[in-house]
Amino acid sequence: DMAVRHYTLDINLSTPVDSASVVPGLLSIFHEQELTETIHDTNGHGYLATFVGKNGRLVVLRVHSHGLVTVDLQCHEDDNIAQLDNVSDQNEKHVEFSILLYFKLPALVRGAKVDRYWPTADGRLVEYDVDEVVYEEDSAYQNIKILHSRQYGNILVLDGDVNLAESDLAYTQAITGNGRENYAGKEVLILGGGDGGILAELVKQKPKMVTMKVIDGCKMYMRRTCGNTLDTLRGDCYQILIEDCVPLLKKYVQEGRTFDYVINDLTAIPISTSPEEDSMWEFLRLILDLSVRVLHPKGKYFTQGNSVNLKEALSLYEEQLGKLSCPVDFQKEVVCVPSYLEQWVFYTAWKK
Amino acid sequence: DMAVRHYTLDINLSTPVDSASVVPGLLSIFHEQELTETIHDTNGHGYLATFVGKNGRLVVLRVHSHGLVTVDLQCHEDDNIAQLDNVSDQNEKHVEFSILLYFKLPALVRGAKVDRYWPTADGRLVEYDVDEVVYEEDSAYQNIKILHSRQYGNILVLDGDVNLAESDLAYTQAITGNGRENYAGKEVLILGGGDGGILAELVKQKPKMVTMKVIDGCKMYMRRTCGNTLDTLRGDCYQILIEDCVPLLKKYVQEGRTFDYVINDLTAIPISTSPEEDSMWEFLRLILDLSVRVLHPKGKYFTQGNSVNLKEALSLYEEQLGKLSCPVDFQKEVVCVPSYLEQWVFYTAWKK
Repeated sequence: DMAVRHYTLDINLSTPVDSASVVPGLLSIFHEQELTETIHDTNGHGYLATFVGKNGRLVVLRVHSHGLVTVDLQCHEDDNIAQLDNVSDQNEKHVEFSILLYFKLPALVRGAKVDRYWPTADGRLVEYDVDEVVYEEDSAYQNIKILHSRQYGNILVLDGDVNLAESDLAYTQAITGNGRENYAGKEVLILGGGDGGILAELVKQKPKMVTMKVIDGCKMYMRRTCGNTLDTLRGDCYQILIEDCVPLLKKYVQEGRTFDYVINDLTAIPISTSPEEDSMWEFLRLILDLSVRVLHPKGKYFTQGNSVNLKEALSLYEEQLGKLSCPVDFQKEVVCVPSYLEQWVFYTAWKK
Repeated sequence: DMAVRHYTLDINLSTPVDSASVVPGLLSIFHEQELTETIHDTNGHGYLATFVGKNGRLVVLRVHSHGLVTVDLQCHEDDNIAQLDNVSDQNEKHVEFSILLYFKLPALVRGAKVDRYWPTADGRLVEYDVDEVVYEEDSAYQNIKILHSRQYGNILVLDGDVNLAESDLAYTQAITGNGRENYAGKEVLILGGGDGGILAELVKQKPKMVTMKVIDGCKMYMRRTCGNTLDTLRGDCYQILIEDCVPLLKKYVQEGRTFDYVINDLTAIPISTSPEEDSMWEFLRLILDLSVRVLHPKGKYFTQGNSVNLKEALSLYEEQLGKLSCPVDFQKEVVCVPSYLEQWVFYTAWKK
């Protein structure tokens, strides 16, 4: 693995300064390092110098005219600069490249064999402690990855979105009513739920249930989540149907079949805020409408929403809930799902 | 606020390549942008070009000899490139700078007025949704900040470490035994706990308690956590002592006074793995020893540990627990504290 470490350092000088007063001090640090300097013409946009050193080190020094100084240091993982990564050991080691002491943020690790950066739904950059890609497959519908995290166990990632980790019982509990429901003897329909987490929790209460669309790989690599429920397609109180859920829901509507609980674990609310044009929203509305139509008059519909920060997408979803052919009431709950690194909204809806 | 956005793009070419076969395609994108190009001599460490454009844009293109291509784009926040940040809107806008479509990671925001990056204890880079510094003070002991997060509420940050957010009832519950204890009528000693969270939870159970060392600012800005418990130094069942805890503990030892519960909320386990030399470890051992000495024979000692990933620091702590003058047993629990963005270990210890 020949990753590149990228350190950043930003100094906000309180007042806009002439670069002449700041640059020399910083330059003297780099001049000691046998780096080849290039000063660039920025057309009046502050000072910019690049330094190229042995081992392929690159330093970019900018002094912006409004007083921000940015320093970038890129070096190969096996460059001895990178050995200093453990902050607590810094004082005990010979520090060849003294500027490194000023880099307070962890380095960006670029081009590593296993990608550590999986942004949150609300668009923040977060680094995971993943050390291995356990499983990867491109299905007809999506890219499926299972990554190993030191603290969250295996994490299912669908099309780049963190979907569920073995640490995330809180997700399964939230989408099944957080212990407020009694599933014994009840008819339950799970849409999605391919990781087996919901099924594994509910079978403990002996309902009669139907589920569908299993994701290969989870059976093997998410066992802390699914237990042995995905090993066979039929258990005492459940059956797993490998078919598309829209035709199935339509069939149930036609037959007049109803369920005490419908749990929609298919997908989060689309982030796009164009519900009239977006096919994701169209799919969501279709599923929602069919789900409510197969819901027993006293039944409950559970689903995940999205990041609590995506207020616009969430209120668009609530608008859709108000437009269903069969009127519903709803409530929502904000839950901390460990591996998400953001607060997540869950919905419960029921017929008025 | 004149922050700089820093986009990164990394392409791992499966086999080491001659830069001649990759560079032209990427160059053609930048050539369209009226950028001034500089090609650098890297002494055989691959291809390196920098491009400086109008508005102070900077592009760094590297092709490493082992097949990793890295692209950096830095631009001012008000540069219209940065307008494209909302991924879902990209298709609907005129994309002047087409390369931006390939930057999949959120930009690093550099030099913003409010810092968004507060690394985890296990050294990962994470971005918070903070939009305001609500309070800041340098006390004699530490730098105290209270930041406002859209999803976590106000967050107390001590010396750069995320300490507690208003969302973090899970922390308070964990360090008080997660609902397994009955505090009614009990003598409780809280060491630290300056945010008032533990006090606010325990007074609901009407114990008799002592606490100390309040952090100014929490009273005002962490009210969802502390309620009104910090408004006065003495309540029906508590007193807040503004004094150093070591002399106080020593006095209690001398008097032979004991407590049913000692809750140490002073500090996490030091990350440094040199417990013999480090003054933080020395402080920790002193507090631990005194705490156990004032613990009732049937009493319990609660404390936080650290990130579950810091296995070495945690096992050093457990070693210390084994070396106390009064032998103890212990158990630990891993808990998800919402604003920490990492799994956290809590300890319970009791006299053998």
